[in-house]
Amino acid sequence: MGLKVVIIGGGSSYTPEIIDGMIKRHSQFPVSEIVLVDINEGARKLEIVANLAKRMIEYTGAPIQLRYTKNRREALQGADFVTTQIRVGGLKARALDERIPLKHGMIGQETNGAGGIFKAFRTIPILLEIAGDIHEICPNAWLVNFTNPAGIVTEAVMKHSQHQKVIGVCNIPYNMRSGIGEIFDVSVDRVMIEFVGLNHFVFGKRVFIDGVDQTDEAMRHLIYDDLNYSPANIVSLPWNKNFLQSLNMLPNPYHQYYFQHAEVLKKDLQAYKENGTRAEVVMEVEKKLFEKYKNPKLKEKPQELEERGGAYYSESACSLMASIYNNSMDIQTVNTLNKGSIPDLPSEAVIEVNSVISASGPIPLAIGPLPDTISGSIIQLKKFEQLVIDAAVTGDYKKAYASIIMNPLVTSDENAQLVLDELLQAHKPYLPQFDREVVNV
Amino acid sequence: MGLKVVIIGGGSSYTPEIIDGMIKRHSQFPVSEIVLVDINEGARKLEIVANLAKRMIEYTGAPIQLRYTKNRREALQGADFVTTQIRVGGLKARALDERIPLKHGMIGQETNGAGGIFKAFRTIPILLEIAGDIHEICPNAWLVNFTNPAGIVTEAVMKHSQHQKVIGVCNIPYNMRSGIGEIFDVSVDRVMIEFVGLNHFVFGKRVFIDGVDQTDEAMRHLIYDDLNYSPANIVSLPWNKNFLQSLNMLPNPYHQYYFQHAEVLKKDLQAYKENGTRAEVVMEVEKKLFEKYKNPKLKEKPQELEERGGAYYSESACSLMASIYNNSMDIQTVNTLNKGSIPDLPSEAVIEVNSVISASGPIPLAIGPLPDTISGSIIQLKKFEQLVIDAAVTGDYKKAYASIIMNPLVTSDENAQLVLDELLQAHKPYLPQFDREVVNV
Amino acid sequence: MGLKVVIIGGGSSYTPEIIDGMIKRHSQFPVSEIVLVDINEGARKLEIVANLAKRMIEYTGAPIQLRYTKNRREALQGADFVTTQIRVGGLKARALDERIPLKHGMIGQETNGAGGIFKAFRTIPILLEIAGDIHEICPNAWLVNFTNPAGIVTEAVMKHSQHQKVIGVCNIPYNMRSGIGEIFDVSVDRVMIEFVGLNHFVFGKRVFIDGVDQTDEAMRHLIYDDLNYSPANIVSLPWNKNFLQSLNMLPNPYHQYYFQHAEVLKKDLQAYKENGTRAEVVMEVEKKLFEKYKNPKLKEKPQELEERGGAYYSESACSLMASIYNNSMDIQTVNTLNKGSIPDLPSEAVIEVNSVISASGPIPLAIGPLPDTISGSIIQLKKFEQLVIDAAVTGDYKKAYASIIMNPLVTSDENAQLVLDELLQAHKPYLPQFDREVVNV
Amino acid sequence: MGLKVVIIGGGSSYTPEIIDGMIKRHSQFPVSEIVLVDINEGARKLEIVANLAKRMIEYTGAPIQLRYTKNRREALQGADFVTTQIRVGGLKARALDERIPLKHGMIGQETNGAGGIFKAFRTIPILLEIAGDIHEICPNAWLVNFTNPAGIVTEAVMKHSQHQKVIGVCNIPYNMRSGIGEIFDVSVDRVMIEFVGLNHFVFGKRVFIDGVDQTDEAMRHLIYDDLNYSPANIVSLPWNKNFLQSLNMLPNPYHQYYFQHAEVLKKDLQAYKENGTRAEVVMEVEKKLFEKYKNPKLKEKPQELEERGGAYYSESACSLMASIYNNSMDIQTVNTLNKGSIPDLPSEAVIEVNSVISASGPIPLAIGPLPDTISGSIIQLKKFEQLVIDAAVTGDYKKAYASIIMNPLVTSDENAQLVLDELLQAHKPYLPQFDREVVNV
Repeated sequence: MGLKVVIIGGGSSYTPEIIDGMIKRHSQFPVSEIVLVDINEGARKLEIVANLAKRMIEYTGAPIQLRYTKNRREALQGADFVTTQIRVGGLKARALDERIPLKHGMIGQETNGAGGIFKAFRTIPILLEIAGDIHEICPNAWLVNFTNPAGIVTEAVMKHSQHQKVIGVCNIPYNMRSGIGEIFDVSVDRVMIEFVGLNHFVFGKRVFIDGVDQTDEAMRHLIYDDLNYSPANIVSLPWNKNFLQSLNMLPNPYHQYYFQHAEVLKKDLQAYKENGTRAEVVMEVEKKLFEKYKNPKLKEKPQELEERGGAYYSESACSLMASIYNNSMDIQTVNTLNKGSIPDLPSEAVIEVNSVISASGPIPLAIGPLPDTISGSIIQLKKFEQLVIDAAVTGDYKKAYASIIMNPLVTSDENAQLVLDELLQAHKPYLPQFDREVVNV
Repeated sequence: MGLKVVIIGGGSSYTPEIIDGMIKRHSQFPVSEIVLVDINEGARKLEIVANLAKRMIEYTGAPIQLRYTKNRREALQGADFVTTQIRVGGLKARALDERIPLKHGMIGQETNGAGGIFKAFRTIPILLEIAGDIHEICPNAWLVNFTNPAGIVTEAVMKHSQHQKVIGVCNIPYNMRSGIGEIFDVSVDRVMIEFVGLNHFVFGKRVFIDGVDQTDEAMRHLIYDDLNYSPANIVSLPWNKNFLQSLNMLPNPYHQYYFQHAEVLKKDLQAYKENGTRAEVVMEVEKKLFEKYKNPKLKEKPQELEERGGAYYSESACSLMASIYNNSMDIQTVNTLNKGSIPDLPSEAVIEVNSVISASGPIPLAIGPLPDTISGSIIQLKKFEQLVIDAAVTGDYKKAYASIIMNPLVTSDENAQLVLDELLQAHKPYLPQFDREVVNV
Repeated sequence: MGLKVVIIGGGSSYTPEIIDGMIKRHSQFPVSEIVLVDINEGARKLEIVANLAKRMIEYTGAPIQLRYTKNRREALQGADFVTTQIRVGGLKARALDERIPLKHGMIGQETNGAGGIFKAFRTIPILLEIAGDIHEICPNAWLVNFTNPAGIVTEAVMKHSQHQKVIGVCNIPYNMRSGIGEIFDVSVDRVMIEFVGLNHFVFGKRVFIDGVDQTDEAMRHLIYDDLNYSPANIVSLPWNKNFLQSLNMLPNPYHQYYFQHAEVLKKDLQAYKENGTRAEVVMEVEKKLFEKYKNPKLKEKPQELEERGGAYYSESACSLMASIYNNSMDIQTVNTLNKGSIPDLPSEAVIEVNSVISASGPIPLAIGPLPDTISGSIIQLKKFEQLVIDAAVTGDYKKAYASIIMNPLVTSDENAQLVLDELLQAHKPYLPQFDREVVNV
Repeated sequence: MGLKVVIIGGGSSYTPEIIDGMIKRHSQFPVSEIVLVDINEGARKLEIVANLAKRMIEYTGAPIQLRYTKNRREALQGADFVTTQIRVGGLKARALDERIPLKHGMIGQETNGAGGIFKAFRTIPILLEIAGDIHEICPNAWLVNFTNPAGIVTEAVMKHSQHQKVIGVCNIPYNMRSGIGEIFDVSVDRVMIEFVGLNHFVFGKRVFIDGVDQTDEAMRHLIYDDLNYSPANIVSLPWNKNFLQSLNMLPNPYHQYYFQHAEVLKKDLQAYKENGTRAEVVMEVEKKLFEKYKNPKLKEKPQELEERGGAYYSESACSLMASIYNNSMDIQTVNTLNKGSIPDLPSEAVIEVNSVISASGPIPLAIGPLPDTISGSIIQLKKFEQLVIDAAVTGDYKKAYASIIMNPLVTSDENAQLVLDELLQAHKPYLPQFDREVVNV
C-alpha cells in the first residue's frame, strides 16, 4: 500500500514543484494519495493548482490519486506525511510586514527584522493548531514545515506541541551546495558544506568535495572571482572582500540584512519608492503564474516557477520525505533539535544543521563550539528567536516589545514601539492571541 | 609603616579627586607615599597636578609624601597599589575615535562602537606593559585600572599578563546606586543593585533598599516620574516607557547607543556639526581646569571637576583599595573574573559584578543565568570584546576587521573597512602591533 | 514588636542549644515568641524540653514567650522564622538505616549510602508538607532546615514547593573553620574557608586567615601534625598523607565513607557487632540527656549536649536568622541555590556554599569551575542526589532503584535490590508515596 | 596506485584477523602494501605472524605486498593508514596489572581500575611517540588505534600530539549490535544502537532495527530471556532485572566491574587463586595460537582466534579504514572528539560515539544531554580519565595518586597508595616519566 501525503497550503503557487518532485521520485517514494488542503480565501487558487497537478500526474501516468479539500481534519486521516507551505494573511500581510518597517526607516523583510517577527506571530498559532490535529488524527505522520520563518516555527512546535515529529526545511542550504558545485564544477551530491547556525542565519563553515576539505579554495573563489550564489528573491550586494576573508566561511544571502545593513536599507527604500514592496512584485508574478496554471494544456511544472524564488524547495522536501521513508541514513540539512550539535546553544533549540535522515527522523551531526567570529551573533539571534516564540504563544505585549527591541535590525526603543503598534493593528485579524492586551503605557 | 600608591597617568585632571579620596580616608587607608607617574607628553600637566596635590595634602596636614616622576619602573618599587588612568594618544586620539566613525554615519564614541575598539587597541599593549612591570617589580601590588574600556582592558590583562592582581573600576554602578538612593531618599550605602552584565553594558536587575527587594517600585519611578540618573558626560535621551516595562531592569546610560541607536546617532551628528566632537569640548573644559589647578591658592579639589564627568571615580577606586587593605568583606561593583557568577558567560571572562572585597581581592557574587531579554545582547557583546582583545594582542588585520564588523553599532561590511582603515592610519603611532600587516585585499 | 520563631521537631534534644542561641543573641535578634512543635510520638519529650527551655529563658530574664503545641498549622500563624529539626520515624528508623545496609556488607550510615537515601525518602514528603503550610500560612517566613540530608532536602523543597524561602544548614563548615582556627590559634571569625561542594561532601578549597591565603600552611599542618578536626559523631580515621597532598584541599569528616571505604566499612561492621548501630548508642545518650533535662534545677544548656555531636548547629542556625533579620551582609556557609557559583553544576542545584546573608536571603559567592581532582565526584554525587529527590517525590520503584545503584557506596546490582526492598519494607509506614508500586520484576 | 597500511605491534596474535579483513575487502579498499612493525622483544612472534600473513595473501592471490621490520620510522614512509595494537610490557605487564590490585582486595583488570590506569601510563608515552613520528613522516596518514584503554589513549593523542588524525576503535559496540541482531534475528547491518558514553563504559541508549525504535522490545528480551551478549574475555554475570529495568538501556559487559563490583571481585579473587590472572590464561592461549601459526600449511585465519576474545576487531578497523578511503558516509562507532555530541562533556573530550565516516574522518552524531541515571557516572569517569592522562603525560606522583583515588574501583586512600607504589615499582622500566619523583610523604 502506498503513502499518503497531505499538503497544507496546497493552493500555493509552489505546489507544482512538490508534485513534480513526488512524480519523479515515485519509485523510491511510492506516494499513492495526495490531498491538497487550503482555506476559503485560497479556494480559487486551490482549484487551479489541483487541476494542474492532476494533469501533471495523468501526463506521467504515475499511480497517484490527488484530491483537494478545505476540510483539514478530514484530509489528515491516515496521512504519512504532512507538508505546510502556508502564508497567514497572504501576500497582503507580507506587504504590510515589508511596508511598515520601511516607513520607519527599518529593514522591512519577510523573515528578518520586524516583518519576520510578525510573520512568526501570525504563523505559530496556526502551525500549533495543525500539529495538534496531526497528533490527534495521524500521530505517526511527519510534519515537514517549510513555512517561514521556518526555524522559529519549528522550534515553536517542538516546544509547545505534543507532536514532536516535525522538521523544518529551507532551500538555502541546498542552493549554497549547488552554488559551490558550480564553482568546483561537480554535481551537488559531491558537495558537503558543514553548516552552522540558524535558518536564514546559517554559515558554511567548511566546504568538502568528495569528503576533502576545500574551504580555502572555495573562499578564494568567492573573494577573487566575484561569484554569486544568491537565490533570486533576495536582495543581493557583493560582499566586502575583507568580510569574507576575516569570516573564512560562506555567508548566506540573508546575512546581507545584518552585515550590509546600511546599503541594503538604502537599496530597499529606493526599491520601495520605485516599485512598492517585494510582496507587490510577487503578487504580479503570482498572477501571471496562475494564468499559466489555468491553461488546460499545461501538463508540467512551468519554467517561470523557478524564477519565483523557491527553486529546490521541493527538492529539499521530497528528498527528506523519501529518506525518512527509506531509512536512507543520508545527510540532509534540516531545522531540528540541536541536541548538543552546537554546544553553545541549548540542546532543545532548533538549528539548521546537517543531519543523518533515518526512519526515526533526523539525527544532527555534532559541529562543536561556534567559531569565535560568529558565536556572538548566532547566540544573540537564537535568544531573539526564543523571545519571539514566547511572545507569539503568550500574546504578551511586553514580550512582543522585548522581541522587537532585541532584534538587531531594529534601530531604537521608540521605533520599536511605533512599528510594533502599527503592525499589531494592521494584522489584528490574524493575531487573536494579542487581543487581550493592546494597552500601552 | 604606611602604604605606597602609584598613580600612572598622574597628570590627569582627575587626579585631585583621588588625592582627595585618599586624604579623607586616611584613618582607614593609611597611605604614606603617593607617586604620580606620567609620560613626556604629559610632563607639564603632571607638574601642575602634582603641585596642586601637594597643596591639598599640606592643607589637611595628612602625613603623606607625594612626588612625581616620568620613570615608571622606578616609581613602582615597593608599591602596594597602582592605579591607571591613562589615555593613550590623549584627547586628540579620542577626537579621532569620535570623528572618523561619525564621518561614515556611525556612532563615534569613546568606549562603544569603532571608537571604543580603537581605544582598546591603543590601551591594551600599554596596560600589558604596566602589568608586566608590576609583576616584576612589585608583584604583590594590586593594579586598579580605570582606563576605558575598563572591562576589556581588565580581561586583556587577566588573559595576557602574568600579573593577576588586577581590578577594573567604573563609576557607573556607583552613580546608578546613587541615583536610586535619590529616588528612594535614602543614603547610597543602603542601596544595593544586583548588577548584571559588562562594563558600560551593565543592567540593574534588582534593586534592594536595606536588603528588601524594591525593584518594582524603582521601575515605577523610572517609568512614571521621568527620573534621570545619567552622568554628565553621556548623551542622554529619555527611555521609551515600554522599553523599561518590558526590560523590568535598570538600563545604564551607555545603553542608549544600542537601544536608541537611531536617535543618538542623529543627535551626535548634529552636535558634531555644531560643536565638533565631545573630545574637543572636553579639551576646553580641561584647559580651564588646568588654569584653575595652577592657582597656588587652590588647596582643595575644585567644584568644576565633578562636572567633568568622572565624579565618583575616586570614590570607587579609594574605597576599593581601602577594603582590600582592611579585608573589609563589603560589597563593591568591580570588573573581575566571572567565575560562574553568570553561568552563561565563560568563567574566565571579565564582567562587572557585585563582589565581596577581601584582602585577596574581589569575590564575585553569583547571579545565575542571564534574564532572557538581555542574555543575547550580553553574550554577543562579550564575544565581541574577546575579538577586540584578540585583535589588540595579535595585531592581526583580519581579527581587527572581525571585531569591528561584529560590533552592533557598525552598519555594514563596507563601512567597517572604511572606518577600520582610516582609524588604523590615524592612530598609527600608537598601534605598533598592527604595523606588520596593513595590506588589505 | 518582636519576632516569632517556630521550631518544628521542638522535642529534639538539640532544642536547648537553639534556645540558648536565641537568648544570647537577643539584642541583635529580638525574638519575642518561640513555639515548639512536635508530633504525638514526641509529646513527652516535647514537654520536657519545653519546660527546660522555659526555665532557661526565665533564668536569664529574656523577654521571650515560649509555648509548645502539636498543632503545626496553628503554630505557624505569624511566624517570621521556622526551623525544622525533625527525624521521621525517630532513632528507630535511623537504626534500620544503619543496620540493614551493614547486614549486606555495605556502609550503613544516617546521611550517606542506602541509609541516607531512605532518610531522604522519609523526610522529603514531610518537609514539602511543612513548606506548603508555611507558604499558605506565613509566606514571608524563612524556613531554616537542619534536618538531614540537609542539602538533598533543601533542593527538594526548592524544586517541588512553591515556598522558595528555604535555607539548609549544617554544622560541618563551622566546625571546619573552628578546627582551622585552632590550628592557626586565631578566633573562628578570622577564618574563611572557600568551601566547594555539597552538604556532607564539601571540600575546603582554600583557607584564609584575615583574608590572606594560608592554604599551603593549613595543608602542611594537616599532613605533618596529624591534627584532627572531626566532630564527635563521625567515624574518624586519619587521612593518608598522599591523599591530602594530592587533594591539596580540606576534606570533611564524611569523606571517609568515600575515600576510606574499605577501612570504615570494616570498622563499622566491627562496631556494629560490638555495640549495635550508632542509633542505638545515641538512644542511650538521649535517654540520659532527657533525664538531665527533666531536672527542674537545670536552667542552662547542659555540657553533655555538646558531646551529642550537634555542637554549633544552633550557632549556625541562630546566626543565620539574625543576619537575615539585620540584613548583615556577612558571609555564612549554607545550602542554597547554586546560581552558577559552581558553573559545572546546574544553576538550580542546591550546594553548600559561602554566601552573603541579606534580608532577601543568601547570595552565594562565585567559586568558578570545580578543581579537576574532585569535579567528577561532586558532579556524580549531585546527580545521585537528584535521582533521590526524583524517587522520593514520585515514589517510583525504578527511580528508587536507580538512585541506590548509582550511589558510590552501594556494591552491586543485587545488593542494591536486597537493601532497597528490605528498607522499603522496614520503613513502610513512613513511605506512603511508595505504596502504589512494590511489585518487582 | 594502491594504499599502504602499517601495523604497529604486527607480531600480535590478532594480526591474522586484520590481514584477513584487508584481503576480503580488497575490491573496496585496495591495499597494495602492508608493513608489520614490532620491537626486539616481539621479533620472533613478528616473524611467525608475518609468514602466516604472507601465506594467507598468497593463498587468495590478493595483489598485496607484505613485509615486516623493527624499524618503525622507515616503515612509516608513505603510509596511508597506521594501526596500533601494541601491549607495552607484554602479557607479563598485564599480569602485574591484574595481580597487584587483586592482592589488595581490589579489581585487577586490564582496562579498568588500577590496572587500567597503569596500562594507560605505559601506553600513552609510546602512542605519543608514534603519533609524533607519523606527523613528521606521513602526516596525511590516519592513526587507527585499538590499543587499550582505547578511549584514554586516543584522547591523550588528541591533546598532546600535533597529529590529530587519530581514531580509537573497540569491538564492544560491534559486538553489542551483533548481539542485538541475534535477538531480533536480523543481520547486524540492520541494527543501529544509539551508543552513549565512553570506551568500555558505553551504554546502548536506544536500539533501532531498520531505523525503527525497538528499545523496549530489546529490553524485554534482555530482562526476560536471559540473553547474553558478552564477548568471551570478560567476566560475565547476569544482570539484576531491576537494574536493566531502571536503566532501560543496554549495559556493556565491562559495566559489571562497576555495577556488580562485589560479585565480580569475589569471582575474580576466586579465579585468581585457582588459575592465576587472566593474563596467564591468555599466555597459554597465545602459546597455542603461535604453535598453530607456525604450521606452514595454515593459510587462513584459524578458528581459535575468535575465542581469543578480540573477534571483530578487524571488522571494526578494516571497515573504518575502507570508509575513510571511500568517503562512505556510513555510520560506525568510534572513539573521537565529542564536539558537543554529549553536551554535558567537554567538546574536546574523546567519547565512544556513532559517527559518519568521511574522507576527512569521523563526524559524531549529536546525542543530546546524558540520561539522568547514567550522567553522573559517565561524567565522573571522563574526569577520572583526564586525571589519568594528566598523570601519564607529566609523570607527577600526586597526579597519579589523584587518578587512582578517584577511580570508583579503588577502595581507600591507603589501598590507593599501596597499589600505586607497587605498580610504579613493578613497571619501572616502562614508566620513565615517573622516574623523576618517587618520593612519597
